Amino acid sequence: MSDAAPHTAGGAHTADGAADGGQALVREARALDEADALAPVRDRFALTDGTAYLDGNSLGALPLPVRDRLAHVVAHEWGELRIRSWSESGWWEAPERIGDRIAPLIGAAPGQTVVGDSTSVNVFKATVGALRIAAADDPARTELLVDAATFPTDGYIAESAARMTGCAVRPVPAAELPGAVGPGTAAVLVNHVDYRTGELNDLPALTAAARAAGARTVWDLCHSAGALPVGLDEHGVDFAVGCTYKFLNGGPGAPAFLYLRRDLQPRFDSPLPGWNSHADPFAMASGYTPAEGALRGRVGTPDILSMAALEEALTVWEEVTVDAVRAKSLALTDFFLRCVRAYAGERTAVRVTPLTPGEHARRGSQVSLLCDPVDAAGPVMEKLIARGVVGDFRRPGVLRFGFTPLYTAFRDAERAARVLGDVLA
Amino acid sequence: MSDAAPHTAGGAHTADGAADGGQALVREARALDEADALAPVRDRFALTDGTAYLDGNSLGALPLPVRDRLAHVVAHEWGELRIRSWSESGWWEAPERIGDRIAPLIGAAPGQTVVGDSTSVNVFKATVGALRIAAADDPARTELLVDAATFPTDGYIAESAARMTGCAVRPVPAAELPGAVGPGTAAVLVNHVDYRTGELNDLPALTAAARAAGARTVWDLCHSAGALPVGLDEHGVDFAVGCTYKFLNGGPGAPAFLYLRRDLQPRFDSPLPGWNSHADPFAMASGYTPAEGALRGRVGTPDILSMAALEEALTVWEEVTVDAVRAKSLALTDFFLRCVRAYAGERTAVRVTPLTPGEHARRGSQVSLLCDPVDAAGPVMEKLIARGVVGDFRRPGVLRFGFTPLYTAFRDAERAARVLGDVLA
Repeated sequence: MSDAAPHTAGGAHTADGAADGGQALVREARALDEADALAPVRDRFALTDGTAYLDGNSLGALPLPVRDRLAHVVAHEWGELRIRSWSESGWWEAPERIGDRIAPLIGAAPGQTVVGDSTSVNVFKATVGALRIAAADDPARTELLVDAATFPTDGYIAESAARMTGCAVRPVPAAELPGAVGPGTAAVLVNHVDYRTGELNDLPALTAAARAAGARTVWDLCHSAGALPVGLDEHGVDFAVGCTYKFLNGGPGAPAFLYLRRDLQPRFDSPLPGWNSHADPFAMASGYTPAEGALRGRVGTPDILSMAALEEALTVWEEVTVDAVRAKSLALTDFFLRCVRAYAGERTAVRVTPLTPGEHARRGSQVSLLCDPVDAAGPVMEKLIARGVVGDFRRPGVLRFGFTPLYTAFRDAERAARVLGDVLA
Repeated sequence: MSDAAPHTAGGAHTADGAADGGQALVREARALDEADALAPVRDRFALTDGTAYLDGNSLGALPLPVRDRLAHVVAHEWGELRIRSWSESGWWEAPERIGDRIAPLIGAAPGQTVVGDSTSVNVFKATVGALRIAAADDPARTELLVDAATFPTDGYIAESAARMTGCAVRPVPAAELPGAVGPGTAAVLVNHVDYRTGELNDLPALTAAARAAGARTVWDLCHSAGALPVGLDEHGVDFAVGCTYKFLNGGPGAPAFLYLRRDLQPRFDSPLPGWNSHADPFAMASGYTPAEGALRGRVGTPDILSMAALEEALTVWEEVTVDAVRAKSLALTDFFLRCVRAYAGERTAVRVTPLTPGEHARRGSQVSLLCDPVDAAGPVMEKLIARGVVGDFRRPGVLRFGFTPLYTAFRDAERAARVLGDVLA
């Protein structure tokens, strides 16, 4: 391991290292799990197969109540009530209702968040919306700054949004955005947490810098919603999007969400003005009149099966706070990094270096390790998975381990690091 | 009823009218059901509650096998395999695989149809795609002709597509489109079946006229896919979209489909170039390189729960042909119109006039009746529903009755007309 930081020191040696074969770390994990107030929440998830599932940052585990909820929606709401469910089972209002369930997790007051479509489609809506408002305020603002390390789809969609509104994209590393925003900047599109490295970008500071320069902000919360406090309202974010199948456990390809800040809603000029966003959809009017409120961000008919799974998945948050999740997330990733130092020392054949910042304020809810040599990463992850430790691999050489505090235990972190040490050796 | 056509004639009187209190029509319905080769297919659907469900043109009934399929996808594929299902359960390829299940129903060879997103989002992709190809061939083509009676969302989205590509929309009644296309026409967006009247537009003739004028075509098949032969390849349609929750019974808000004609695929320049449409999505490249084939029409991560329900719903087509469905559809709507004439004669307090053409070549798979007075329609439909006859109501005065030959029986048609006659009286 190329990390130069000392990972053993004096009396901490046995507790911190693997000199005793890891027995101290196993004991420590057990003690941490016993003291963990969130530990009982794990029982709500389908995780009894002995896997250390550290890929909830890609696909959250199944919340068990989703099974019955979906069965009910299918057999009763669709099967028996059929068309009546649009009114009688609350189908029509699902996008706003579920949006308001997500709202407190991202620091948004009610009435600003709507669920539907994919993240990519919502990036398009939000980015075009931001660029149009910026242009209306000042036609000289034609530049869209995009986090240079963005998850690819945001960058691709940003190019399309810019092209279709007469703007131009400039990629800028997130940390350099405060110095890059200026009088020509229309909007800034940034990932809250870097999907590859797990680095947490400074939302308050970047948002403040953009606002000071008169630019609009669009935040992608895919890797932060449900993992850490976001504070959209508090920090004056203009638009945000995020996915619901990672830390929110909504299911594979579950619909994404869109946040439209309340005071901007009347100015939101959607590039996808589908009939669901009309002020009176069932008037079937030939002319478009946008609805008021967050539902202006809707497009077509909501996908009810997926919405129902997501809504049920979100009920866990009735008993859990984001602050508690964040505290456990940092403890989990701290502990995992310590275990990795202990088990995957410099002696291993393949060496790993954390890409995720050690500083809490700069860390999301995952740990990414860069392999040396890089082409070892794929085979290493295959071996981990074969041994029941599930993370994922991002080319060329990154091992990703996601920590979902709702169901990840400290013993998972210890085991993952221990198996990793074996595999790397 | 204002229809001037004689509905009784000589010896046909008792068979065709309600002079015997409808006993002849009841007997005829029974005989038609007994002779119906599609009658056993009804057992695959959740329709045992005694409802005459004539709203499958809005939300198709539940195919019973969907229950077990979804339960398996949730409990096993998501719950147990979790992230591995993207490869091991065929999740990643679902959009193309399910598209190819729909393809034969719309007359498309494999490799041209992809499932995902809402109909509105697909109208945007297809329309922008068509306008861009037209402009590349001839920059003077800047007009988008839109079916003046279109379902509203197509019109709203068309306005946005035109605005964002420097074009202009002109609404034209579908029948007048052949005379309206010209050297300035970039593309034509038409509904195959009018959602309100049930009129079937002439796809071969309109497509030929557009092609002759050098314009691109985008067909909306929401009310024809699964109800009647479409013949996209045969007639040279450029792009098509359609929904899957009506005659395809995919479930509430199920993902829509997009047809990209094979020879146009290399030129399809998507306005929503999400990472799923990248040539190598997992390279996570910062630059966008579009995939080859229909999957160029994909955007974000596919919504697996809804896709699974739809895929299961489509298995019924392994045993049923669209031609058989079309033949039964015409027989059903013929019979229903006859029953309406018999039961809802001129004597009724509220009078109804069919808006749906009598001519088979101009009729979709629904019957729309205009009420006089128009404001009676809403209360009439409420009474029908309370008596177990489920159609729907479109403002200001239209009663819609959809006929899904997979599960609609002739006895449903007879009963619906009889109850309608009672309510109108």
